Amino acid sequence: MDNWLPTLITATPSEGYDLAVKLARIAIKKTQPDAATRDKVRKDYEADAGALIAVSQVVATHFTTISAANDYWRGSK
Amino acid sequence: MDNWLPTLITATPSEGYDLAVKLARIAIKKTQPDAATRDKVRKDYEADAGALIAVSQVVATHFTTISAANDYWRGSK
Amino acid sequence: MDNWLPTLITATPSEGYDLAVKLARIAIKKTQPDAATRDKVRKDYEADAGALIAVSQVVATHFTTISAANDYWRGSK
Amino acid sequence: MDNWLPTLITATPSEGYDLAVKLARIAIKKTQPDAATRDKVRKDYEADAGALIAVSQVVATHFTTISAANDYWRGSK
Amino acid sequence: MDNWLPTLITATPSEGYDLAVKLARIAIKKTQPDAATRDKVRKDYEADAGALIAVSQVVATHFTTISAANDYWRGSK
Amino acid sequence: MDNWLPTLITATPSEGYDLAVKLARIAIKKTQPDAATRDKVRKDYEADAGALIAVSQVVATHFTTISAANDYWRGSK
Repeated sequence: MDNWLPTLITATPSEGYDLAVKLARIAIKKTQPDAATRDKVRKDYEADAGALIAVSQVVATHFTTISAANDYWRGSK
Repeated sequence: MDNWLPTLITATPSEGYDLAVKLARIAIKKTQPDAATRDKVRKDYEADAGALIAVSQVVATHFTTISAANDYWRGSK
Repeated sequence: MDNWLPTLITATPSEGYDLAVKLARIAIKKTQPDAATRDKVRKDYEADAGALIAVSQVVATHFTTISAANDYWRGSK
Repeated sequence: MDNWLPTLITATPSEGYDLAVKLARIAIKKTQPDAATRDKVRKDYEADAGALIAVSQVVATHFTTISAANDYWRGSK
Repeated sequence: MDNWLPTLITATPSEGYDLAVKLARIAIKKTQPDAATRDKVRKDYEADAGALIAVSQVVATHFTTISAANDYWRGSK
Repeated sequence: MDNWLPTLITATPSEGYDLAVKLARIAIKKTQPDAATRDKVRKDYEADAGALIAVSQVVATHFTTISAANDYWRGSK
């Protein structure tokens, strides 16, 4: 996991959003490095409304950062 | 879901708000790709005060981003 | 609900705050379109400390956006 | 409660913080206009760790807004 | 507690972080002025994972404000 | 723990993200200085979906700050 995030720049908002989803997941990986435990936890939250909304909140926060980094993709069409 | 989000620019704040609602939902879709499970989860939170307020929080965060992207629609009337 | 939000600009911070309260409520309306269910949900959270504080958090986030849109009403007295 | 918030400008960060506390409370007032219910709710959260921390979070968000409005009081000593 | 916060400017990011911790605590003090109750509440959350993470979230929000106030200490080494 | 955070500047977004993870943990350390209690708490949240997502939220907030401090690493490749 050396330089796994070389840049915050993406070609489109869609790709920026996907990067936000990825950033939300990485923190969980770094807090719980054991893959088997993470799989179990993932099962817990994948069907839980509150947890899914909370994940969506984390994604929203990262998307704020990534959007600013890309100057809101104002130049793209 | 290739380039589902070509731009953050909208004509009015109302449309920007609708886009924020959409962005809040997409994260749930990307975390729980199974439509049937999502339908079940949706039933759980649609009548739950805490969950509805949490969704509103995610929308607020995305609306911050979209509003900045549109320079707060200062030029429109 | 076509162009229900024509602008983020308000005359005073007080009006900006009221708009923030409105924006917090709209997301709930858009997630739960049924008025009867919303009334029931509203009863649940109107007397619940955690829910009221959570609503206050959503309002705070929208107020951040609206304040920036109005350049913090620096020009007004 | 007409123009209860004429400005976000304060003389010092301390006063800005007090204003943030006030803004956090106003949202609760606007969501639950009945004073007796609010008093009861207040008793619920005044001794609850989670609720007190959540209030602190709302204050922090408002303080972000107010600090930006005051250009972080950089000119004051 | 008159002018307890004369400035948001600190010499280093470390000191800025300490100030963020302080700001997170002050809101609790202002919401629950009774020291004995606060001591009891503190015992509740000091060993509770969710509460400790929530405190960390409040600190993060204040640190955002303080970092911006200090222009991210870009001039310091 | 004197000057444990001399700068917010990092060479890459990856390192910035690691710093965000560190900042999220420090607040817990400062709120609960006893290492044994922290170890116990850590066990509680390492396998809990809600807690892991909440940690991810704190990391996201710090990453916003650090990204802005580094001007989003726009100059790097």
